[in-house]
Amino acid sequence: MCRWLAYSGSPIRMEELLVKRDRSLIDQSLHSRLGATTTNGDGFGVGWYEDGEPPRVYRSTHPAWNDRNLKELAAGISSPLFMAHIRASTGSAIQETNVHPFRHGRWLWMHNGLIREYPQVRRELQLRIADDLYTSIEGTTDSETMFYLALTFGLEHDPVGAVEQMVGFVEETGRKHDVEHPIQMTIATTNGETIWAFRYSSEHDSRSLFFSTALDALRALHPELVELGALSDETRVVVSEPLGDLSGAWNEVPESHVGIVQPGEDELRPFSPG
Amino acid sequence: MCRWLAYSGSPIRMEELLVKRDRSLIDQSLHSRLGATTTNGDGFGVGWYEDGEPPRVYRSTHPAWNDRNLKELAAGISSPLFMAHIRASTGSAIQETNVHPFRHGRWLWMHNGLIREYPQVRRELQLRIADDLYTSIEGTTDSETMFYLALTFGLEHDPVGAVEQMVGFVEETGRKHDVEHPIQMTIATTNGETIWAFRYSSEHDSRSLFFSTALDALRALHPELVELGALSDETRVVVSEPLGDLSGAWNEVPESHVGIVQPGEDELRPFSPG
Amino acid sequence: MCRWLAYSGSPIRMEELLVKRDRSLIDQSLHSRLGATTTNGDGFGVGWYEDGEPPRVYRSTHPAWNDRNLKELAAGISSPLFMAHIRASTGSAIQETNVHPFRHGRWLWMHNGLIREYPQVRRELQLRIADDLYTSIEGTTDSETMFYLALTFGLEHDPVGAVEQMVGFVEETGRKHDVEHPIQMTIATTNGETIWAFRYSSEHDSRSLFFSTALDALRALHPELVELGALSDETRVVVSEPLGDLSGAWNEVPESHVGIVQPGEDELRPFSPG
Amino acid sequence: MCRWLAYSGSPIRMEELLVKRDRSLIDQSLHSRLGATTTNGDGFGVGWYEDGEPPRVYRSTHPAWNDRNLKELAAGISSPLFMAHIRASTGSAIQETNVHPFRHGRWLWMHNGLIREYPQVRRELQLRIADDLYTSIEGTTDSETMFYLALTFGLEHDPVGAVEQMVGFVEETGRKHDVEHPIQMTIATTNGETIWAFRYSSEHDSRSLFFSTALDALRALHPELVELGALSDETRVVVSEPLGDLSGAWNEVPESHVGIVQPGEDELRPFSPG
Repeated sequence: MCRWLAYSGSPIRMEELLVKRDRSLIDQSLHSRLGATTTNGDGFGVGWYEDGEPPRVYRSTHPAWNDRNLKELAAGISSPLFMAHIRASTGSAIQETNVHPFRHGRWLWMHNGLIREYPQVRRELQLRIADDLYTSIEGTTDSETMFYLALTFGLEHDPVGAVEQMVGFVEETGRKHDVEHPIQMTIATTNGETIWAFRYSSEHDSRSLFFSTALDALRALHPELVELGALSDETRVVVSEPLGDLSGAWNEVPESHVGIVQPGEDELRPFSPG
Repeated sequence: MCRWLAYSGSPIRMEELLVKRDRSLIDQSLHSRLGATTTNGDGFGVGWYEDGEPPRVYRSTHPAWNDRNLKELAAGISSPLFMAHIRASTGSAIQETNVHPFRHGRWLWMHNGLIREYPQVRRELQLRIADDLYTSIEGTTDSETMFYLALTFGLEHDPVGAVEQMVGFVEETGRKHDVEHPIQMTIATTNGETIWAFRYSSEHDSRSLFFSTALDALRALHPELVELGALSDETRVVVSEPLGDLSGAWNEVPESHVGIVQPGEDELRPFSPG
Repeated sequence: MCRWLAYSGSPIRMEELLVKRDRSLIDQSLHSRLGATTTNGDGFGVGWYEDGEPPRVYRSTHPAWNDRNLKELAAGISSPLFMAHIRASTGSAIQETNVHPFRHGRWLWMHNGLIREYPQVRRELQLRIADDLYTSIEGTTDSETMFYLALTFGLEHDPVGAVEQMVGFVEETGRKHDVEHPIQMTIATTNGETIWAFRYSSEHDSRSLFFSTALDALRALHPELVELGALSDETRVVVSEPLGDLSGAWNEVPESHVGIVQPGEDELRPFSPG
Repeated sequence: MCRWLAYSGSPIRMEELLVKRDRSLIDQSLHSRLGATTTNGDGFGVGWYEDGEPPRVYRSTHPAWNDRNLKELAAGISSPLFMAHIRASTGSAIQETNVHPFRHGRWLWMHNGLIREYPQVRRELQLRIADDLYTSIEGTTDSETMFYLALTFGLEHDPVGAVEQMVGFVEETGRKHDVEHPIQMTIATTNGETIWAFRYSSEHDSRSLFFSTALDALRALHPELVELGALSDETRVVVSEPLGDLSGAWNEVPESHVGIVQPGEDELRPFSPG
């Protein structure tokens, strides 16, 4: 439905991953290879952190490939942690408030997938959102509802637990309405320091999700690539679809797992909604 | 906050009222004389009926004064009953789904004013909307919530009663949250045959609302205006602010009243929420 | 680069060809089969005639597939002669003034293809445009320049001759700048009564162009299709790519030819620039 | 017609001047006090320099007051030299390519005013633009034509001389076409190090233009303003209309003068086209 990318590491110009690369995110907006739709032209958004400030977001309803402002910003802004998302709507309106990443305080959130039969369950799901969070909802997507549910369940304190609760609640609600496989998702969320990347679906056949290989391993594989030397060892990219064709560069996140990109050792853990 | 216009009568090109007239609606978008804001540049919408079909709507987030498509459509489309609205946002996002008129089946709805402290009461108001209507909400305005509440209360069968109930419910909810004057509104709604135009506010100091004078009276006053001869006797315009300066052309709708423009005699009735 | 469609015949809702049909124009905007690009998401335009009035146009920079206003208009407007175009930019800016069809007085013009090395020859081509026409140029495409050149060469009096001169001039100018194959085009132009559809390229390997089969022949082939009975015998569609898969419905316009859809017998003539 | 602002000095968040200030540029977009039009809602642009890189620009056709991306960027980007412009179109299309500032290499350019009877003289003016510059023209404004003429006359080597030649040429051309007062302008242009700000009109009754007072003088006047201490002595703002009402903060640029904001002593010189 959508394509997304999350970066953490040495500060780089966002254009390095959004524009310049072979199979960059903009390239994927025109012809994705692994997505459920080949064209992802219903808007895009980027969110970035700089100098310890709250995240900034730029969101547009134009196709990423023909937006000049996006190219200017991506060329002008360097960031050690940023997210970008290109959208292929599954029905909700094309408007900035439906464009990912969503933001709440220091947190960003983006999603590829869907809650099935969302119109039927929307109200019941939204009723569970905390009162003080409900007023912040601006759009009409299932993805934003998932974000506010996760926040209600404590995303800011226990991200993995909160997303597990959120998914459990969505599945329970869907099943009450006879939806066989209520949820399909890859999700990335961050507080500006750590990135959590989830891969899950009720049918256990989730959309693709990849981590970049640890840089020291990649340098050993490709000693010819000088540019890899400039990046810190901790640099990681999480993507719904690989950028470029570099052999050995990408590892798939296993079904029903969450990857955690953080200072120090990264982690990969089973994900069990409940 | 906004300016609007509703027309019923002999089919005319929409541009006659939206574009060409001195103090036309487009002119008011740049410098309104009676509005709460002088600039109404946060989008506009038109809704029209033709040949017994369901209403069509054109909605845009661009300022009305610089939208070329609006001028093309207004020049190309003749209609016996249409509505137009120019928006000055009171805070909710600038997006097509927040642009009036709103549509449900054969009904159109538009609003000038606000529900005060809407973020506080939004959830409680939306909970009262019927299940099957809730899924049709696409935007985030107080105005759309008022429409779906009125539909819940039976707008399609008893428009005046349903709007009275809706306003009563908004006032009751607001007061529970210590809002002194919960609602301020002029509203127009139509099923394509009759137009209901409401003027009401909790503080009994409502935004302006005007009806055009009955055409036979206007012709007697201005025998020099040949163009009046071409319109049927039943032709009426309801506006938040007069178009042009023709003396004797406009009558103010009294505070807490509803005007009903319909085949046969028009009506003006007291409006008592409850 | 682009996809387009021109219709002439019994008045029909524009949505019949733009939206509803299998492989409708909107469908082609997402995944064209025969185009140089599969995605045509850089804006779209429609131009239509009604009741002997000058043509109206609606032009947008959004992708056709996600524009709600387009669907409303296409559902609301019936026309006996209309054109629609979906754009895939070859470099010039995404802005309404670059969206086809272009209009001058009662004439509409749209183009698929390109003038090669246009930046090099643009100035020389534009110098040849008549003074009083030059001031009407609003965009920056090669296509609009071709239109104003054709108008300069007498499009309104001798359409085929004027387009032949225009192409001859573009080829001559290109060759002076060592461009091997200066022009590639399918073009449709109309005065509201007749449609001229050109297929030509300097390399004699032009983009596809199809005419719908004469209706009486099509009815004989498909007696089961009741809807064909409602259309007048003179109904014709010209398209860059067939709509639907109905066997026998489409004939290709031969290389270097112009088709003329007009009251009475249609014509197909060789096209020789010079 | 428009309002603009140019800043040079200690790096500051752009929002300080665009958003936060009383009578900020965004505030002026809704109700300008000194402009030829009170509403400047036909798009806006910002251009900024950072770290010795070429300038970046962000341009939008939405009104500045309701564009969320502008607020995000203005909050996120610090710059020692930037320009911002809000547009009120005098007729040419509302499209990004007509939004100021215009950019060529390291240069930015913006304009308030107009070339009178521009459609009549456009072609003759554009013919004088150097061949290799002509291909870079993307929009249709008089302002962009003035920029490319100035570049043709050597803007990059002798800015004042080039603008004098440009204005002289525009006046000469206008007079050949019997235009009494061919040009009205305030212009700002920069190479990222120096800002040149011109105030001129053929009728010697030019739009307003102001320089901020030298900071040491301002500090002496307002010792209570702590924030002034944080800015370098060389900090200057040039504006078409003062920001805020601080007494002693603004000096008017005299009629037919150019102000030069540069490292070291700033300059104010007579401006004589010819």
